[in-house]
Amino acid sequence: MRTKGTQATGEFSLIDLFLSHFPRARVPVGPGDDCAVLAPSKGAQCITTDAVVEDVHFKRAWFSPEDIGHKALAVNLSDLASMGAIPRWFVCALALPRDFPRRELAGIARGMSALAREHTIALVGGNFTSARELSITLTVAGELLPGTAPITRAGGRPGDVLYISGTLGDARLGLQQLLSGVRRSTAILRQKRPVPRVGLGRLAARFVSAGLDVSDGLAQDLGHLCTASRVSAELELERLPLSRAVRAALGTEGALAGGEDYELLLAVPPERTPAFERACLRGEVPVTRIGRLTRGEPGHIRDASGRSLRLPAGFDHFRGGRRIDRSGREG
Amino acid sequence: MRTKGTQATGEFSLIDLFLSHFPRARVPVGPGDDCAVLAPSKGAQCITTDAVVEDVHFKRAWFSPEDIGHKALAVNLSDLASMGAIPRWFVCALALPRDFPRRELAGIARGMSALAREHTIALVGGNFTSARELSITLTVAGELLPGTAPITRAGGRPGDVLYISGTLGDARLGLQQLLSGVRRSTAILRQKRPVPRVGLGRLAARFVSAGLDVSDGLAQDLGHLCTASRVSAELELERLPLSRAVRAALGTEGALAGGEDYELLLAVPPERTPAFERACLRGEVPVTRIGRLTRGEPGHIRDASGRSLRLPAGFDHFRGGRRIDRSGREG
Repeated sequence: MRTKGTQATGEFSLIDLFLSHFPRARVPVGPGDDCAVLAPSKGAQCITTDAVVEDVHFKRAWFSPEDIGHKALAVNLSDLASMGAIPRWFVCALALPRDFPRRELAGIARGMSALAREHTIALVGGNFTSARELSITLTVAGELLPGTAPITRAGGRPGDVLYISGTLGDARLGLQQLLSGVRRSTAILRQKRPVPRVGLGRLAARFVSAGLDVSDGLAQDLGHLCTASRVSAELELERLPLSRAVRAALGTEGALAGGEDYELLLAVPPERTPAFERACLRGEVPVTRIGRLTRGEPGHIRDASGRSLRLPAGFDHFRGGRRIDRSGREG
Repeated sequence: MRTKGTQATGEFSLIDLFLSHFPRARVPVGPGDDCAVLAPSKGAQCITTDAVVEDVHFKRAWFSPEDIGHKALAVNLSDLASMGAIPRWFVCALALPRDFPRRELAGIARGMSALAREHTIALVGGNFTSARELSITLTVAGELLPGTAPITRAGGRPGDVLYISGTLGDARLGLQQLLSGVRRSTAILRQKRPVPRVGLGRLAARFVSAGLDVSDGLAQDLGHLCTASRVSAELELERLPLSRAVRAALGTEGALAGGEDYELLLAVPPERTPAFERACLRGEVPVTRIGRLTRGEPGHIRDASGRSLRLPAGFDHFRGGRRIDRSGREG
């Protein structure tokens, strides 16, 4: 963990403060040198990088530092989950406004560290720099069990059954509630503290033909899966798993537009669905069958009656003016 | 390569635009899925993450997009160089202001891609997000040849001879010239286009006891090496390799405070110095002997006459108010 662009002596103690919340990484060379040094991996490695930026992905007025630290790691772990990978290590690049309070930095570290411990992933290095707004960019690595193929978006085949984990739309509803002045609700917790489906991803890797994590809304992400797999899809809208609050406030279409669900969308060949469902039951991971992949125009999605679904694009972010309309244009 | 926080349809073509400047990575799964998937590494892996931020590490008025793309990768490659690692892959997280011009994004990609090709390092994934200011956070991985130990800061021993590559202070002088209105000079080129000493690092790994890349000024970074190695050092100031311009404008003390030199500081056991110097000559890598490690208070540095050197701390950055005074306090 080093500074560049923030060479004041004081900054080094910020680094020590941040690191002190994490267990010492068991690697040949950890934080403190120019690079971390890691032993060769046994299985294939899955790598992802993702950032959370102040006023885009969170507001400091509404998110505790612990929430921010949690979310920064959770969105990355969700990408590992979607490939079926076992979390291994990550590096953390922090951009901090000048005079960022030490107690808030400690809070970010605590939120991140708690989730890291839960998933046994080691912080091996990082970087601090100054910036106008707070942002956290993580690069996270997972490993596939030797001999296991990663879950990708491209393997889906017509006839495969579609499953979604958890419920949809809650994080979007939470965002709307925050914007309207509500400060506490189950949906707001989903917005602030997404739960990466790491266990489900590892379990699913043995059964699925394709999958991804739903971060841009089910409609859009199902479109990505279908495009990559060169198939169409049929969604049974009445089967979508929605909380009562989401059903009342957003309805099916709002839940489809979702955003930041971080649930896994999985395509399972029909002959494997009984074993997959049994494994999910044993693992106590809630999944719901919501449709199937079909032949047809790649990326095209219909409901059970055959009606084309218009894809709602994206979702509202915190920053004013980032609202994206149904045609995909920013408004 | 995916977007989060920038879900407008148009953004996907920005990603394609960026990627189109890079050769297709030869990995099991490259950009476009939730993670990149890489085959297991043969040797140990060296990992580093580093960011360049608008108005902290560059000004868009003074740096071309190509300069920015080059610098973002160069500062990371320099960390790999300092460990003696062979560059392998990197991921790129871009934070872009709204309405960032496409031609500037293409320029960043071109500058980054040219340096990536030179060092045969593959872009395997990344992320776009919106932000108030432009920043680029890369995570870069290199590999050690099987059986080779990494160069760390901690291995130096009393008696080891200190070498520095290239010349010192040029990037700092370039920054001063930019601030004073000069727009073109050799020193400004060193500020905009640092040259990571990757070849030297690989060569040096066979000889050195310790080393690092000098990014915070020789005085400060030598202090880090001495502290990690628990030794003192004696610098022969008159031997410091300074360009004529740096000698005239900054003097020895200014060059010691340096900043963004990205030269390698290496400690070589005395019995290996003849072979090391021959290898550098053969490799056409200029290195200069500038002192030696000694017994004494860890981190303490003297000149050849035994006088303690006060360590100038840090260096001026682009952002107003970040000037750091000699005592290490921000002013």
